[in-house]
Amino acid sequence: MISKVICLIFDGLGDSPIESLGWKTPLEAANIPNFDEIAQNSLCGLMNALGRGIRPGSDVAHLALFGYPMEKYYTGRGPIEIAGLGIKLEEGDLSLRGNFATVNSNWDIIDRRAGRILEVSELAKALDNMYIDGINFIVKPGTAHRAGVILRGQGLSSAISDSDPHEDKKPVKLFYPLDSSEEAQFTSQVLNKFIQKAHEILKDLDINKKREKQGLLPANFLLLRGAGLQPSIPSFYNRYQLKACCIAGGGLYKGIGSFLGMDLIEVEGATALANTNINGKFKAAIKALDEYDFVFVHIKATDSLAEDGNYQGKISFLERVDKELVIFKDLPSNVLLVITSDHSTSCNLKAHTADPVPIIFYGKGIRVDRVSQFDERSCAYGGLGYIEGKDLMPQILNIMGKLPLHGA
Amino acid sequence: MISKVICLIFDGLGDSPIESLGWKTPLEAANIPNFDEIAQNSLCGLMNALGRGIRPGSDVAHLALFGYPMEKYYTGRGPIEIAGLGIKLEEGDLSLRGNFATVNSNWDIIDRRAGRILEVSELAKALDNMYIDGINFIVKPGTAHRAGVILRGQGLSSAISDSDPHEDKKPVKLFYPLDSSEEAQFTSQVLNKFIQKAHEILKDLDINKKREKQGLLPANFLLLRGAGLQPSIPSFYNRYQLKACCIAGGGLYKGIGSFLGMDLIEVEGATALANTNINGKFKAAIKALDEYDFVFVHIKATDSLAEDGNYQGKISFLERVDKELVIFKDLPSNVLLVITSDHSTSCNLKAHTADPVPIIFYGKGIRVDRVSQFDERSCAYGGLGYIEGKDLMPQILNIMGKLPLHGA
Repeated sequence: MISKVICLIFDGLGDSPIESLGWKTPLEAANIPNFDEIAQNSLCGLMNALGRGIRPGSDVAHLALFGYPMEKYYTGRGPIEIAGLGIKLEEGDLSLRGNFATVNSNWDIIDRRAGRILEVSELAKALDNMYIDGINFIVKPGTAHRAGVILRGQGLSSAISDSDPHEDKKPVKLFYPLDSSEEAQFTSQVLNKFIQKAHEILKDLDINKKREKQGLLPANFLLLRGAGLQPSIPSFYNRYQLKACCIAGGGLYKGIGSFLGMDLIEVEGATALANTNINGKFKAAIKALDEYDFVFVHIKATDSLAEDGNYQGKISFLERVDKELVIFKDLPSNVLLVITSDHSTSCNLKAHTADPVPIIFYGKGIRVDRVSQFDERSCAYGGLGYIEGKDLMPQILNIMGKLPLHGA
Repeated sequence: MISKVICLIFDGLGDSPIESLGWKTPLEAANIPNFDEIAQNSLCGLMNALGRGIRPGSDVAHLALFGYPMEKYYTGRGPIEIAGLGIKLEEGDLSLRGNFATVNSNWDIIDRRAGRILEVSELAKALDNMYIDGINFIVKPGTAHRAGVILRGQGLSSAISDSDPHEDKKPVKLFYPLDSSEEAQFTSQVLNKFIQKAHEILKDLDINKKREKQGLLPANFLLLRGAGLQPSIPSFYNRYQLKACCIAGGGLYKGIGSFLGMDLIEVEGATALANTNINGKFKAAIKALDEYDFVFVHIKATDSLAEDGNYQGKISFLERVDKELVIFKDLPSNVLLVITSDHSTSCNLKAHTADPVPIIFYGKGIRVDRVSQFDERSCAYGGLGYIEGKDLMPQILNIMGKLPLHGA
């Protein structure tokens, strides 16, 4: 009886036939005996995360796979990226993405990225946890010059402008309301107070004085954009009664896990690049089965390499993954392994496409079909047929005997 | 990289297995090596224009294939046929279809088709471009006794009766409003003035006096029916940024092209019958690639022959098409060829059916599948699976790398 799931998602795994590979796709051209052996003992099919003819970004595709339709739960990439910074967002939180920047005394922008400052933890810490007019401002560092800001409190609105003019040499824009509501008025005012206060704190920080002495631009301003209110998100656990964790290198994917209330498991060397520690991530997945019912493992490089048109790189990476995949061949009999992807990325087009991706279900008691290879065209002939992302979780719950009964 | 498309639509191409063909369909029974060779190098599948279990007319099926759902864009066959007469309809235009007819001095109908008069250009011209109460009346000749009338101006309504009683020996009906609006009142009145004036002009025309001398019925009246207001139709170009043309023999299909803002390309001998100039149409399609991004080619006889139950005729016609199809085998590498149909027409039932039709995508970089023959049952095993008409344009745009991204 299946009671645990490892869900292995290779970003941008599906691809197009490539002329110099004799019109094979990278998956078809790669020598991947372990993938093939697993597929041979799986129920196979094809899937489009959002449906036929819809070309998805990775964020909304993952939400769809986990059963969270974008129409209802997607309020922009901001809240997801901010969730990836390790902040548990609550319903009604207003999040903005930001840059540490350099302004002169007239608030004209000298550099939107403060001379591409590399580390902003100390700057974020100096601004974190302020209270203004009953609103709590939470400030977390992102990568390089980036940061996330969360406003938590009553009466907030996302109908406000950006303070970031999105260009150097322009003055900072004050926030203003985009509708006639009191909430938009209030949110603009309190944010204007916050950026003023943040500027006063930042310009006097030791770290900035030191930068100036070194001839570097001081990171004396926090430019904000993309306000998004956190919708009410039922957690993955509340939705499926499955205790879930996320093993990912990329910030966006940690964000998706965190956004859905999954625990994040950090793995050394999980870089989200082609050099990532595959063995470490796969071992962590097996270990996580002790504590979790649902282990989401994300592998990014299949997408990035295809975005670069580097099909040889994609093939080599797949072959390296294949060697590590052996670890999953003899899973305990209560474990289901799902291998699939969020969307195709074409090395020809160097872009996401709406072509479906292969999906396989590997575990005891599954209706294994006649497919003997793991690739886009072989899986088209699988016993599962063609599904959409929204069908994935019901399919998993079905295998686990956990679907509710309709009728009697 | 695919940047141009030829979309070859065979009307009523799908069919049923026929006992005297050993339960083969006409497509299966026909000897069509070029179709088969193209299918062998294509991504194949089945399609229902409107969806499972929906038996479509050709007009709404074509609209669906081009991404114009009937719920939103179909206001009757009238506007489409009138578009096929070469008139660019504007939003708010009221179109009616009409017959030139013969009435006596009491306006009793002697013959609804004026003795099946064959040519009405001169008659239409005599009525064209009248102005009554601020409304411009545009009158264009159709085939044989038929004509189209467009009312252009402010305050028009389609909630009006027909003047055509649809039977001989009945009196002409005056238009009356079908709702209580001022617009319906006004439209009825202005149309009654128009038919009165038209009658006065027609009865004195030389051509009619000549007919009477020859013992023929004079075409002294214009009977009108099927008022339809032109909806706001985004053009095919505005929708897809593809410059499109239409190569068709049948008036309805020219109408569809014109309705969507495609340029009509006339081909000598394109009769919409089994004797049509296939070679001329296919050559015109190749030539049109110089100027157009999307070439819609319509072939009608596959449907008409099946409507007559003439499966031997359908087979012979397909075999004749197959010989000409060779022209498409070596298209430039930037061209996608799509071959499909709007609906099945069963020779057994002599009617359209809701059975899906084969569809194939032929071009460089496409996920060619294992199908080796072009027919209904072979394509059921294609890598594309089953799609609906609404999926066709997204699938084409996907292959062209032109789909917008959802999410980020």
